Amino acid sequence: MPELRKDPVVDRWVIIAPERADRPNALLRARAEPEDEKGCPFCAGNERMTPPEVLVHREPGSERNGPGWTLRVVPNRYPALRVETVMAREGRGLFDVIAGVGAHEVIIETPEHRLTMAELPAEQIESVLRAWQERIVDLSRDVRLKTIFAFKNHGAPAGATLSHAHSQLVAMPVVPPGLAEELRGARKHFDDKERCVFCDMIAQELREKERIVAETERMVILSPWAARSPFELWILPKEHRSAFESSSGQELHATADALRAVLRKIDVALEKPAFNLFLHTMPLREGRNDWYHWHLELKPVLAQHAGFEWASGCTINPTPPEEAAAFLRQTEA
Amino acid sequence: MPELRKDPVVDRWVIIAPERADRPNALLRARAEPEDEKGCPFCAGNERMTPPEVLVHREPGSERNGPGWTLRVVPNRYPALRVETVMAREGRGLFDVIAGVGAHEVIIETPEHRLTMAELPAEQIESVLRAWQERIVDLSRDVRLKTIFAFKNHGAPAGATLSHAHSQLVAMPVVPPGLAEELRGARKHFDDKERCVFCDMIAQELREKERIVAETERMVILSPWAARSPFELWILPKEHRSAFESSSGQELHATADALRAVLRKIDVALEKPAFNLFLHTMPLREGRNDWYHWHLELKPVLAQHAGFEWASGCTINPTPPEEAAAFLRQTEA
Repeated sequence: MPELRKDPVVDRWVIIAPERADRPNALLRARAEPEDEKGCPFCAGNERMTPPEVLVHREPGSERNGPGWTLRVVPNRYPALRVETVMAREGRGLFDVIAGVGAHEVIIETPEHRLTMAELPAEQIESVLRAWQERIVDLSRDVRLKTIFAFKNHGAPAGATLSHAHSQLVAMPVVPPGLAEELRGARKHFDDKERCVFCDMIAQELREKERIVAETERMVILSPWAARSPFELWILPKEHRSAFESSSGQELHATADALRAVLRKIDVALEKPAFNLFLHTMPLREGRNDWYHWHLELKPVLAQHAGFEWASGCTINPTPPEEAAAFLRQTEA
Repeated sequence: MPELRKDPVVDRWVIIAPERADRPNALLRARAEPEDEKGCPFCAGNERMTPPEVLVHREPGSERNGPGWTLRVVPNRYPALRVETVMAREGRGLFDVIAGVGAHEVIIETPEHRLTMAELPAEQIESVLRAWQERIVDLSRDVRLKTIFAFKNHGAPAGATLSHAHSQLVAMPVVPPGLAEELRGARKHFDDKERCVFCDMIAQELREKERIVAETERMVILSPWAARSPFELWILPKEHRSAFESSSGQELHATADALRAVLRKIDVALEKPAFNLFLHTMPLREGRNDWYHWHLELKPVLAQHAGFEWASGCTINPTPPEEAAAFLRQTEA
């Protein structure tokens, strides 16, 4: 069974998930070529190759776990965490461990094997975002789960083991450091200034314009001041909102348009790069507040985490975000 | 000029280093094949292809910046940080920036193009460690520099752009989060218990034996309890010591032997994997204390940082450290 282990020195939780070693190519350095439709578990007609669907958008009259769908959500066959696990915390001398309670789901974004997210119509991207929302709302009923991450790995260099367009959700029984630090920082800014740090950042960026990639009525796309890697991009709603799952239909629509626009821009500017995309939102059931602001972060895979990054926790970025933003502003897509 | 930028929400410093974009293959996804001796700037006879040496082990009578050496230390031609920079701190609205003061040096570990660190004699590995020590002592005279990282990227998947055996040193004007958190955690343990957390960990691991790869008179090699990636390994001195640069000759000798043994083991067990290796030691000029304990961390590159890891700051490791350690204990090398 998977477990969460805490480092005895730093606040670092690691998921030890031996079942994921059973994945094809789990530890291989060179990955196989993208599989074709015939053997792809995410293609229409191959529904039996995945666990049964937990959410689906399908044609009226079509059968569950058969063809006729436009989007499916299924449990990950090689889960990092499992809902069936019984919650347990234990100390072993210096070491702390929590049973690997959680959820790990896959959102199959289209029945078409060859389409990337950038190539999907805006309405289809919107239904992916709506599926994230619906699953977050459903999983938040399990009070053992504290936080959830929606993310997408596109391309083998970004960690994707299957090429068919999909994203993933991982729900966890802890608030891990990557989000905990951000919550702490945003809370501290609010305690000092009584303003949301992300709202402040958006206001400054819209004034200075240097790092803005695009602006729509509801959304801002920018390369952040301290971009960790070349062409790191954030997509933020202009209106303050803490929890992604409470976004309105109009907001989801605007987010889908912005996401589609930025994915098409990087496809042109960076020649269809591999990328990681993820959602930062409030921990589950913590609802509305004035100090945290959900957003998407997008990292084209153009640089590597190497010895210096592992040692220091700092990254070296050779591309100033001002240059990345200027280049993408000019890119027609 | 390079600069250090701080994220406005979290304590995250990023080095924006436009000059590193001039490196060959800086942003390419597929790297060129390893170059041959003729074009390799680290080979004997090609000394003019690097900046002048700042430290060298060479035969008596041989000329500076010419052949006849066994180890050279030179400034990095594409530095992330520079000593020539004037120290300056600035706020720009929400955003903080520090001029990119620091040092970035390359340790050329052997004149032989085809030898890896694992294939070097133990005395040569010892002289690499001694060169790290000497450079740390020398750079610590610059009071603007707060901390230093020695690290090694071996193989293209680990971020190495040249195949000729080399390691690197980066000295920084801040204590970055990767080390700051570890110092904070170790200090907190000491404040609670009046014992070093690393000494406690070594004692527990030597009792339990499950995660021990090898033990020598002076050193322990183990896979840590919360290993972030498959076959993550730590090399620690048994005797408490905070600062690597104050290690004795005997300790360096024992460290070189342990490092050579573990590199040879992973070469056999994991078929010559790419790896990152780095040193965690006290910030500069902070000398001796009872609560921090220097060590080396080694991460074979067998898994990738993907969307989940970027989003959460957690990693998913499919290989329990107990299995990795048992496998390496049995590996004859």
